[in-house]
Amino acid sequence: MPTEVKCLASIEDNKYPVPSTIARRDLRPDDIEVKILYCGICHSDIHHVRGNWGPNGYGYPVVPGHEIVGKVFRVGADVSKFKVGDSVGVGCMVDSCQTCETCKNDRQQYCHSTTFTYGSLDRRDGSRSYGGYSETIIVTEKFVLSIPESLDLAAAAPLLCAGITTYSPLRRLGVRSGWKVGVVGLGGLGHMALKLAKAMGANVTLFSRSQGKAEDAKRLGADHFLLSSDPEQMDAVAGQFDLIIDTVPYNHDVNPYVTALVPEGSVVLVGYAGPLEPTVNSTPLVLRSQNLAGSLIGGVKQTQEMLDFCGQRGIASDIEVINAQDLHYAYERLRKGDVKYRFVIDIATLQV
Amino acid sequence: MPTEVKCLASIEDNKYPVPSTIARRDLRPDDIEVKILYCGICHSDIHHVRGNWGPNGYGYPVVPGHEIVGKVFRVGADVSKFKVGDSVGVGCMVDSCQTCETCKNDRQQYCHSTTFTYGSLDRRDGSRSYGGYSETIIVTEKFVLSIPESLDLAAAAPLLCAGITTYSPLRRLGVRSGWKVGVVGLGGLGHMALKLAKAMGANVTLFSRSQGKAEDAKRLGADHFLLSSDPEQMDAVAGQFDLIIDTVPYNHDVNPYVTALVPEGSVVLVGYAGPLEPTVNSTPLVLRSQNLAGSLIGGVKQTQEMLDFCGQRGIASDIEVINAQDLHYAYERLRKGDVKYRFVIDIATLQV
Repeated sequence: MPTEVKCLASIEDNKYPVPSTIARRDLRPDDIEVKILYCGICHSDIHHVRGNWGPNGYGYPVVPGHEIVGKVFRVGADVSKFKVGDSVGVGCMVDSCQTCETCKNDRQQYCHSTTFTYGSLDRRDGSRSYGGYSETIIVTEKFVLSIPESLDLAAAAPLLCAGITTYSPLRRLGVRSGWKVGVVGLGGLGHMALKLAKAMGANVTLFSRSQGKAEDAKRLGADHFLLSSDPEQMDAVAGQFDLIIDTVPYNHDVNPYVTALVPEGSVVLVGYAGPLEPTVNSTPLVLRSQNLAGSLIGGVKQTQEMLDFCGQRGIASDIEVINAQDLHYAYERLRKGDVKYRFVIDIATLQV
Repeated sequence: MPTEVKCLASIEDNKYPVPSTIARRDLRPDDIEVKILYCGICHSDIHHVRGNWGPNGYGYPVVPGHEIVGKVFRVGADVSKFKVGDSVGVGCMVDSCQTCETCKNDRQQYCHSTTFTYGSLDRRDGSRSYGGYSETIIVTEKFVLSIPESLDLAAAAPLLCAGITTYSPLRRLGVRSGWKVGVVGLGGLGHMALKLAKAMGANVTLFSRSQGKAEDAKRLGADHFLLSSDPEQMDAVAGQFDLIIDTVPYNHDVNPYVTALVPEGSVVLVGYAGPLEPTVNSTPLVLRSQNLAGSLIGGVKQTQEMLDFCGQRGIASDIEVINAQDLHYAYERLRKGDVKYRFVIDIATLQV
């Protein structure tokens, strides 16, 4: 029998989530039920409920949340990797076909049958998926991650999206000791990119339009701070960066960051998906064999690798824990970039 | 004493080269004098003399040509790698600082002091550099390439620019057996990209706006041909290519090629440098972690590696050899894309 659980749900288009209930399915043999303790608030959650990415095609309610940490509460008959009481995480995916080329290569984020954690349809029974602003979630074992004991559970929640989104391109582009890495924007993604790149041995520069971020960037480990709105400062670093992770979540001119790259260097966009205006000039790309790339979260295996790396290095997110009733306030502050650096909902405060 | 040699030179802005003479310097200790036998005609030559890349900042005359094959004629006192009579090639560069990071990493094309083969200033004495539409050229030993005996000398000339320009990104992106590689455009660069990708074991698709190229693409080894102006054919290959080498030499919409990539795949622009219109949409780049890159020729070491690879595989350019007096005719045909697939000047036909 499905179980009714408390949640925060958007009940119609362009409405912020409010206290509600949803039904969670019975356990399948390969399912794990997670009792959720904390859920991070990702920019995607706001984009989704505000319809910034187009109308929600799968109807309402929408329960956002894909930065989930909790404890294993029940396991299906075939589950072998986890037991009741384990500290676990769930990120942006809860299932995929597990048989296609991308799944076999541990790139489940590109599988055409992936069930995303919310706003998606379950690939097996076609039901709506509901995310982590909720008391529990039921997830295919394969998509459950182990949270290292050394990490604070609330601060680990944002690793499941902000962490892997920045870790994956740092690894894919091969960051190593001595590389000069730029991070554009100091928000949820940016502060994780900064911490992770530092932990990989890079010399890190934080680019921001706001001089007010300089002190915090240094505190978080940045070697340098650069005011990206100052053309003189930008000119001074032309040709210097092996890799720039651009976390800005809205359209902006990416050309100055390409100019800041070394030959064969890369700019990787992780925050904004849409038409790039002003247009991209291919001249520096060609004359210096550079790359303009994007990156989408990471596969399950790499997400576990990232969590283990963070566990070993004591890396987690800087967070503000909020009660469920303060969600709207947190959304409004997040829209203004006013958070250091991730809101995390204490799920114990959910009420109906 | 400088030596006066016959050449084809543009004597003022936007004028095609005409028979003329220039002075070649005396040999420095590390110089090699090459008696030129053949010189390929690259699109860059036309861009340069037509001022498409802005006014020629170093004055006139301009002697184009950077796809040079000939025989060693004299060597400086310190030259050790070559002897008189050796078959040699010279590409887009004739000197660089040889001490900076990019030079030490065999990426001389990015050195800030590179002396390009023509339209550049000699880094040591500030004199103008003159290219291969000329009886001889004097080149720093380090920048002289060995031409494998197995190759026809005239057909090898285009390898020095068209060959390395396409070989380098195929290697940098790691093409291996079984990869699906797309080549956009069947001209001087495109036909080399096709041959080289095939020789590396790729399954190659040639994209062209002209159905008339289909038969030739197959003859040159393409596994598939795709009419890029047909949206249905483009839609049918969405998500299929590991790598696409885009050789189109003018502005065009690159977005459909990004759409044709697999996750984490790359489009590499080698033909057009300038603003990309319509603008690049970052959505597929982000959602499928793809790369839009450019590429510029290759370093000296990689150019030799490419020549040796071509020597072993019997790969050279498809060429039309012309006499020097037919240069204007060849330029006009090249501007219309009417050549299969590279014009090469028989330098023995130079007259004043």
